[in-house]
Amino acid sequence: MTQNLPVFADIQSAAGRLKGQAHVTPLLEAHALNAATGGRILVKAECLQRTGSFKFRGAWNCISQLTPEAGRRGVVAFSSGNHAQGVAAAAQIRGFPATIVMPADTPEIKKANTRNYGAKVVLYDRASESREEIAGRIVAETGGTLVPPFEHRDIIAGQGTAGLELAAQAEAAGAALDAVLVNCSGGGLTGGIALAMEALAPKAKVYSVEPEGFDDYRRSLASGVREKNARSSGSLCDALLSQQPGEMTFAINRPRLGGGLVVSEDEVKAAMRYAFEHLKLVIEPGGCASLAAVLSGKIAAKGRVIAVIASGGNVDARLYADILGGG
Amino acid sequence: MTQNLPVFADIQSAAGRLKGQAHVTPLLEAHALNAATGGRILVKAECLQRTGSFKFRGAWNCISQLTPEAGRRGVVAFSSGNHAQGVAAAAQIRGFPATIVMPADTPEIKKANTRNYGAKVVLYDRASESREEIAGRIVAETGGTLVPPFEHRDIIAGQGTAGLELAAQAEAAGAALDAVLVNCSGGGLTGGIALAMEALAPKAKVYSVEPEGFDDYRRSLASGVREKNARSSGSLCDALLSQQPGEMTFAINRPRLGGGLVVSEDEVKAAMRYAFEHLKLVIEPGGCASLAAVLSGKIAAKGRVIAVIASGGNVDARLYADILGGG
Repeated sequence: MTQNLPVFADIQSAAGRLKGQAHVTPLLEAHALNAATGGRILVKAECLQRTGSFKFRGAWNCISQLTPEAGRRGVVAFSSGNHAQGVAAAAQIRGFPATIVMPADTPEIKKANTRNYGAKVVLYDRASESREEIAGRIVAETGGTLVPPFEHRDIIAGQGTAGLELAAQAEAAGAALDAVLVNCSGGGLTGGIALAMEALAPKAKVYSVEPEGFDDYRRSLASGVREKNARSSGSLCDALLSQQPGEMTFAINRPRLGGGLVVSEDEVKAAMRYAFEHLKLVIEPGGCASLAAVLSGKIAAKGRVIAVIASGGNVDARLYADILGGG
Repeated sequence: MTQNLPVFADIQSAAGRLKGQAHVTPLLEAHALNAATGGRILVKAECLQRTGSFKFRGAWNCISQLTPEAGRRGVVAFSSGNHAQGVAAAAQIRGFPATIVMPADTPEIKKANTRNYGAKVVLYDRASESREEIAGRIVAETGGTLVPPFEHRDIIAGQGTAGLELAAQAEAAGAALDAVLVNCSGGGLTGGIALAMEALAPKAKVYSVEPEGFDDYRRSLASGVREKNARSSGSLCDALLSQQPGEMTFAINRPRLGGGLVVSEDEVKAAMRYAFEHLKLVIEPGGCASLAAVLSGKIAAKGRVIAVIASGGNVDARLYADILGGG
C-alpha cells in the first residue's frame, strides 16, 4: 500500500490539473472573529469551491486523468453528497456518464445538485445496505471506474491542493500558521492538507475535527489503530459520517496530525449562525466543525494563528432556516 | 461644488489608506451562474467586507484623515444601517466617540452591530422626522464631525476602491468587463466605481440597480434632473432607500452611467435564495439587487462579461429564514 500513498509532489501535479477548473478559494479573515477569539483566525472558504465543497478537487484530479475509452464506460461513486457532486460535475465536464450511490437520507440539495450535474443517482438505505457493494456491482456490470471518496492517491492529492493554496495565502497575508483545523470524515482532505503543511508550513499543527459520536479519527489517533464509530447515521453533520479512518489516510495522518478535536451539534449550530452573522458565509454542518472548535474553545486561540477549513456549504434551506431560528 | 468632486487619483489615495484596514474582497465566479445566464458573471463580494458591507471603505477613508483633536469631539452619521456600522467601526479603530442617527425600523442586526462597534445609536421615525436635522443638532452641540453617507469627496473615493480592486481582479482573471451593475441608493458606491471604471476599464458600462418604487436614479438619468421617490420607506431593500440622487454623485454618474435598472422584491428574494444555494453567500436584500437584475434578465448577459456588486450581507436571521422558505 505504501507505494500508493501520495507525496507532496502529487499535490503539486494535482494543482496543475485543477488550474482553470477548480476555484482558488479565498482565505478570509474577519476582525469580529479575531476579536472574539483573541487569535488570528483564517477561514479557507471551500464552501465557495465549484460544487459547493472541496470534493471537486479530488474528483477532478482523478477524472481528468481517465482516458476517453475508460471514461466512456462511466464513473461510479458512493457518497453522502459532496463527493457525489464533485464526481458528477467532473464527469460532466469530460462528457462521461456518472452513477452515484447515495444514502436515501442525504440532504435534498445534494441529491438535486448531483442530478443537475447530469449524474444518475442510486439511493440506498444507510442502515441495511452496503454502498460499497452496490457501487461494486455497478462497476462489474458497466466496466466503469470507481472514484472512491478518500482511499485513493489522486483523491488525497487533489484535496491537498486546498492546503497548497492555504499555505501560500497565509504567507501572503503575513500569517505564520500555528494550527490548521480540518473537518474530518474519511480523512482525505485532512491527509492532503497534512502533506501540504509538512512541506510548506511545517510549524503548523494539523488537527482533525469531528462531531460527537463520530470521532473515529480522534480515537484512532489516540489508540494508534483504526477505531470504528458505533453508529453510521444520525448526526447533523451528514458529511462527516465515515465509519472509520481510511487505511491510506490513516497511514498519512497518524504520524502527522497534532490530534483530534470533537464538537457537539449545538456548537456546530452556533458556528453556523456565527458564520451567517459575521462571516456572511453559508456553511453546512459538517463544513462548520472546525470553526465550531475554535469558537467553543476546543483549541487555544489567544495570540495564535489558526486556519479553519470551511469545507462545504451544501445545506438544505429548510434546515438552515431552522438553525438560524435557534433550532 | 465641482472642485469638491473626487477624481480617480483620490480613489488611488484612498486605497493606500485602506490597506491593512479594509479587506480586499474576493471577486467570485460560479460555474452555475455562468451556465444559468450564458455569460461570464463575476461577483464582487462586498458582503465579506469588514462590517459586512462596502460602507467601511468610505467611512475609513474619511475618519482616518481626521486629526486627533477633531476626532475627540466625535463623529456623527445618519444611516439606515450599513454606513452606520462602517462609521462606528472606523471611529472605534481610532478611539473616537461615534453617534449614529438610525431609522427606528432598521434591521435589528444593523442596530446591534452598530452598538457593538461602540457607537451611541439615536433612533428616529423615518416618516415624521428628519435625520439630517437630528444629526445637525448633534454636530452643533458637540462640535463633532458629520460623516455623510455619500455626498463627500472622501466617501465617494473610498467606495471607489471597490472598483479599483474589481478592475484589477477582472484583469487577473482574464475577463474584459462589458458591464458593472451597482446597487444604488445615494449613488456614492456607483459614482466611485464609475470613476474607477472610466480610468481602468473604459469599455465597461456601469449601471445603477434599484428596487421598484425607489428608482430615483433611473428616472434621474433618463430625465437629466434629480428626481425624487414618492416614498421614503416600505421596501425590502432597506439599504437602498435614499430619496434622490446626491448632487455630487449625480454630477459624477450622469455623464458616466449606461443607465438605470430596476428589480422587483420577488426578483431580489429569488436572487438571495440563488446566492444561498449556488454562491454560498449571505447577501442582504439591498445587496442583491444587481444579482437579481442579471438573473431576471434585466440586462443581456449571453456571451458578455458582467460584474455584479454584492454590496452587503447584513440581514436579520428571521427575515433571511423567511425568504429561504419562499416568503
